[in-house]
Amino acid sequence: MTIRKPAGVTIRAVGARAGVSAMTVSNVINGAGRVGPATRAAVLSAIEELGYVPNVAARRLAKARATTLGLVYSDRGTPFIDSVLLGALRATNARGLQFIAQAEEELTPEDAAAAVRTLVRKGAAGVLLVPPFAELLSGSGLFAELGVAAAAIATGRPMPDIATVRIDNRAATAAMTAHVAGQGHRRIGFVAGPEHFSVTDPRLAGFRDGLAASGLPDDPALIVRGPFDPVGGEVAARVLLTLPDRPSAILCSSDDMAAGLIGEAHRMGLRLPQDLAVTGFDDTAIAARLWPPLTVIRQPVGDMAFRAVEQLLAALRSPAIEDLVVAHDLVVRDSVRPFR
Amino acid sequence: MTIRKPAGVTIRAVGARAGVSAMTVSNVINGAGRVGPATRAAVLSAIEELGYVPNVAARRLAKARATTLGLVYSDRGTPFIDSVLLGALRATNARGLQFIAQAEEELTPEDAAAAVRTLVRKGAAGVLLVPPFAELLSGSGLFAELGVAAAAIATGRPMPDIATVRIDNRAATAAMTAHVAGQGHRRIGFVAGPEHFSVTDPRLAGFRDGLAASGLPDDPALIVRGPFDPVGGEVAARVLLTLPDRPSAILCSSDDMAAGLIGEAHRMGLRLPQDLAVTGFDDTAIAARLWPPLTVIRQPVGDMAFRAVEQLLAALRSPAIEDLVVAHDLVVRDSVRPFR
Repeated sequence: MTIRKPAGVTIRAVGARAGVSAMTVSNVINGAGRVGPATRAAVLSAIEELGYVPNVAARRLAKARATTLGLVYSDRGTPFIDSVLLGALRATNARGLQFIAQAEEELTPEDAAAAVRTLVRKGAAGVLLVPPFAELLSGSGLFAELGVAAAAIATGRPMPDIATVRIDNRAATAAMTAHVAGQGHRRIGFVAGPEHFSVTDPRLAGFRDGLAASGLPDDPALIVRGPFDPVGGEVAARVLLTLPDRPSAILCSSDDMAAGLIGEAHRMGLRLPQDLAVTGFDDTAIAARLWPPLTVIRQPVGDMAFRAVEQLLAALRSPAIEDLVVAHDLVVRDSVRPFR
Repeated sequence: MTIRKPAGVTIRAVGARAGVSAMTVSNVINGAGRVGPATRAAVLSAIEELGYVPNVAARRLAKARATTLGLVYSDRGTPFIDSVLLGALRATNARGLQFIAQAEEELTPEDAAAAVRTLVRKGAAGVLLVPPFAELLSGSGLFAELGVAAAAIATGRPMPDIATVRIDNRAATAAMTAHVAGQGHRRIGFVAGPEHFSVTDPRLAGFRDGLAASGLPDDPALIVRGPFDPVGGEVAARVLLTLPDRPSAILCSSDDMAAGLIGEAHRMGLRLPQDLAVTGFDDTAIAARLWPPLTVIRQPVGDMAFRAVEQLLAALRSPAIEDLVVAHDLVVRDSVRPFR
């Protein structure tokens, strides 16, 4: 076992390796002065090769310059929120930013605003939001008042005062509906999310688009609303699977809903995927681990978090509200078998 | 909708509310000077009530004093590692610390050491580790050389140079084995983890303890080793479920292994939980979402992350290597039915 020994490596040695002055190395470390990209790369590479560790004073200096970004989230341990948190942590780490997260369980505009104020008090210059916090705070004037930038991940629409990174929820749901109809399913159920989430309406519209494109009628009895968690799926299963003419396929608006719906279907004695096709939405860690492995719409949450962080950094330089629609994927696994 | 308006709240107003001078408020914000705990609480409470937002210069100052902790992890999107990351993020946030994470996929002592050096270069004064990084680095002299504290979450044993927060893996696995045997299962399979993880040996020993305590023989054919991921469970299912006298219950060393094993059992046409009892380990987000919902040993990962952060902060004040064994739970869900 060999451990590299960086003890004794100096800023001068790094400069010599990179072919620049010690001052240039210092500028790169502290993000100060004007350093071209090639020089910067050479210095970072020399730091890496030599295993140079800046001294504490230099580190303090570098830290004092770091920007802090905050995130408001609902801490219920759901795979989707967890993946947003991890994406935001990775994105801020990659940019050398500080990251703080504020859990808020009360979904009112007042409580959401208090959570943002707490983040700003702790030093946040920009705030990342997930639904439904973006919906609760858009139009409140809060961000202008506090002088902070805001960006939201995975909303259903653009917002006048909050930058957004989202997928085309309507097109995605229409594509999933057409995919399931293309497997011969004619009675397709849909589990929609709660009204106060901005993704709910476009996904419902997409479901209807998909039915129409496949020549299927829009039967209101096959649409159930519920929370985006396993309980939402369980309740939907009890409603949809006890209909006299029950659906042979059910589209869920989250992987968590699909997990709850699958559990309830198993409990009711159905064999999956033979007796019932089920699809999820998001492609969180559970999607591929469920039985049957879920066919889903994948939101690229990690990438979306990186984009939202970029939006915040751009907004700190020059205020602008961008709406970025990123590509989604339809990931086909084993939860949709052809209708027999 | 009412939004609180903190605009115009000054440090003097906070001082007046708390009954202290503006200088004392400043000292509390910046962590400077000598402030008693009661005064500190009064100031923080006044800041909260008035919605005071410190100005940028004060924030910079406060930030320059914040301690940074780092975490080395393997970034494969596993629910267990994700929960450790989130626990560490929440724990550092709660203590006002900065948190940086460094992914490292190469599991060698050299690569693990390079990841720690990167964190230290970025300002980390203490380093959190998860298996197998603690095992790879213990005894290397790295932490003494760099002058940083180290604490590991969820190892299988104490370490001479790294503080540890862990459960009693041997007792936990023995209890699970006895629980399954108590349901009438006599042929019980065990999916062990890889050798280079320190939890593997004590869990295997606990399995054998549990068999002995239940009067069951130790049959080597019923023990399979594999990685802690779904593939480990799939491979184990193919080995154990094709035995001439296949087990009626299989204990897995992680929830991910259980997910893979359950999927493969379904594929082989078994009905669960009737035809096969399965248990997990960790109680990650997937455990309750699988069908059948997993009976598991729960490691309190969030709490363990808080404890490890406390260990690092204590070690920064006065070096000491603590080994803390926290309580685990046996969580009974629906994946173990009595043997008929």
